[in-house]
Amino acid sequence: MKVYRANILYTPTPEELVILPHGYISVRSNGIIEGVYADKPENTDWRQVIDFGDRLLIPAFNDLHVHAPQYRNLGLALDLELLPWLNTYTFPEEMKYRDSDYATRIYRRFVHELWMQGTMRSAVFATVHPEATRILADLFVQSGMGAYVGLVGMNRNCPEKLSNTTEEVLNGMLMLREHLAEHGNNGMVQPIVTPRFVPSCSEEMLTALGHYAAETGMPVQSHLSENRSEIDWVKQLEPDSTCYGDAYNRYGLFGQTPTLMAHCCYTDGEEMELMRKNGVFVVHCPTSNSNLSSGMAPIRKFLNAGINVALGTDVSAGHHMSMLRVMQCAIQVSKLNYAQTHGQMQFLSLSEVFYLATKSGGSFFGKVGSFESGYEFDALVVDDSYLNYDNFTLPQRLERYIYLGDDRDIKRRFCRGVELPEPVL
Amino acid sequence: MKVYRANILYTPTPEELVILPHGYISVRSNGIIEGVYADKPENTDWRQVIDFGDRLLIPAFNDLHVHAPQYRNLGLALDLELLPWLNTYTFPEEMKYRDSDYATRIYRRFVHELWMQGTMRSAVFATVHPEATRILADLFVQSGMGAYVGLVGMNRNCPEKLSNTTEEVLNGMLMLREHLAEHGNNGMVQPIVTPRFVPSCSEEMLTALGHYAAETGMPVQSHLSENRSEIDWVKQLEPDSTCYGDAYNRYGLFGQTPTLMAHCCYTDGEEMELMRKNGVFVVHCPTSNSNLSSGMAPIRKFLNAGINVALGTDVSAGHHMSMLRVMQCAIQVSKLNYAQTHGQMQFLSLSEVFYLATKSGGSFFGKVGSFESGYEFDALVVDDSYLNYDNFTLPQRLERYIYLGDDRDIKRRFCRGVELPEPVL
Repeated sequence: MKVYRANILYTPTPEELVILPHGYISVRSNGIIEGVYADKPENTDWRQVIDFGDRLLIPAFNDLHVHAPQYRNLGLALDLELLPWLNTYTFPEEMKYRDSDYATRIYRRFVHELWMQGTMRSAVFATVHPEATRILADLFVQSGMGAYVGLVGMNRNCPEKLSNTTEEVLNGMLMLREHLAEHGNNGMVQPIVTPRFVPSCSEEMLTALGHYAAETGMPVQSHLSENRSEIDWVKQLEPDSTCYGDAYNRYGLFGQTPTLMAHCCYTDGEEMELMRKNGVFVVHCPTSNSNLSSGMAPIRKFLNAGINVALGTDVSAGHHMSMLRVMQCAIQVSKLNYAQTHGQMQFLSLSEVFYLATKSGGSFFGKVGSFESGYEFDALVVDDSYLNYDNFTLPQRLERYIYLGDDRDIKRRFCRGVELPEPVL
Repeated sequence: MKVYRANILYTPTPEELVILPHGYISVRSNGIIEGVYADKPENTDWRQVIDFGDRLLIPAFNDLHVHAPQYRNLGLALDLELLPWLNTYTFPEEMKYRDSDYATRIYRRFVHELWMQGTMRSAVFATVHPEATRILADLFVQSGMGAYVGLVGMNRNCPEKLSNTTEEVLNGMLMLREHLAEHGNNGMVQPIVTPRFVPSCSEEMLTALGHYAAETGMPVQSHLSENRSEIDWVKQLEPDSTCYGDAYNRYGLFGQTPTLMAHCCYTDGEEMELMRKNGVFVVHCPTSNSNLSSGMAPIRKFLNAGINVALGTDVSAGHHMSMLRVMQCAIQVSKLNYAQTHGQMQFLSLSEVFYLATKSGGSFFGKVGSFESGYEFDALVVDDSYLNYDNFTLPQRLERYIYLGDDRDIKRRFCRGVELPEPVL
């Protein structure tokens, strides 16, 4: 048992920010939180307490949509919309991952930066290359961070060199699954079924991936209703589907197992109802949706409907690996939407986006993202002393850290109870 | 004469990014640029050359709209729209500046952070307090940075304690003007006529400030068409004005001397034509316009019409002092606008926002913001080596610095040819 002392802040619900000034949190040796306390728990010896002083202790961040092989394009190539952006910048970069040396070099930086930014769990797209994907998974294992790692399936409307067959993706997933069953750091790193998106996957591939998910119980991640041209294209490609979401649903890739759908800028009506009914997560990627001129996802509507919502950087369409930036942008975009709708769509609050980045996203990984009893201890120790020059309150300190802070401020990182050292670059 | 060598990048026009890999720039002892050169200029001894190696050398940033006394509220209090935000959070904070000790303490931090973020020139709102405003001006003088510092005039619809009379604001401006004529670091720090905005200023005050500007030739700064409720209110307050801009124009506060108008989210038609005709600057504050749910300013329309546009952080409605964040957000908002208008309003390019943040904003201060011959040498030396791990081109390195960089990367700062040391905090 370990007992930590710090200024503890977390959100058990979207509206409730729990604040324990110089509070305590006790963590079992298996990394599970026993309890949080305003005062030193009884039977705790002072010598047992690890004191972080006046620092903030918050749940670590969870990034539910990110493309590891696009890491080298970070901060670049943001002058096109989705479909030409894929063809012009993204597919050529992803092709490089046939080369395992290149993959090792860039994936090392990617995993290092997740650590740096305090993102302890992520749902990651790799590429079609099984060897590079295994390398990425191994780097996660070495880092101690949690991840779902997806070998991408794509066999149409893409360069031949970035295409795999249904057989190849099934074999690749089988290998990755077996590898991680043995070497996956006790389930911290797991595979996830990853059809790129409907336009890239034939009926045969979608069918096979749906069956595979059903058979194995593996979760699913993909893209949905990101951009108007993409949606029109899906209508042409899948004329029998009643909406884009239905094109996943009919193949068993829409909540039959836990499912993440990134973007959903134009999700409405039937598609929205299907997501709600099937418990599909909207992964909101506001930086990406701005950078690629995709649009403003109606997150308030999704929350009101009781749909699961998490946040994603969507690097490299998102231009930054920090979840702080995503939280800021999520609020800003919701406010522009509020202005556009003359106040009809209430904007997101700070505690809501903090909840989305921690507990809501974390729920995809189990009991992760909160400091309630029974949760895995994923936490960041934040030194905001340079921001705290004038007796700010703890909620103000959290707000200022979210708006003004960066990786420099994170002094210690815990994942499932273990303090993680800086990964080798 | 000094000669600097580095990777030189600047934008003489919005579309043209000039790139000189390991180029040279020669600066006269008065701080004026003699020339930029791809190769070492003739008659230059190697021993004369100050070599910044592989670093980037770019024009320093110019922030054309920022409220110094709101610095303590940075990253806080962003859950209301403009008018309640002013009454609830901003006016109470500005009242504290009656206390010169408080003003000294916070203004010191404000000026320090401008330096840190590489913003070498700014147009600043102070408060109604003459003593605190002089303190701010003196801190700018000590720092070596350039600024227009505005004693704020406001005498209606505001707390009595944050109100001054027309006589007080005229006297205060006279004192500040005389003080800076003598102690203003050779014109680097100058006063600017600063009516807060129409709702805060009586007809008498606006008339007097217009006369004062005409008499002295002093420039003017204020707010315009930021928020729908504000615009409706101005219509009620100034029923004879044909538009919000006309309410300034009829008092001689709309381009009769050089004029900055922040926001302009809803500027159109007559108001836009008046700005064009009078050469009034739109100061685009996209982070603020998002944070206060104000809306999306149609910057492409302004640029197409030939209106002057600069960028502002508008701290603390803007949540960050870095002009990098403002540039990122300007592009993002323009892309959301592009999506909303189904592509009618072309989004801003990287070179355009860089131009706005450097040469366009700088033009308000004279020949500032470019590296052309005859310009004042305002420059930043940027070490992006941690971002440049894989042979990125120089335009890519600039783009990555703008999207991913921060204050850590700025290694040296020059203003009018002088390297500025870190101000005392």
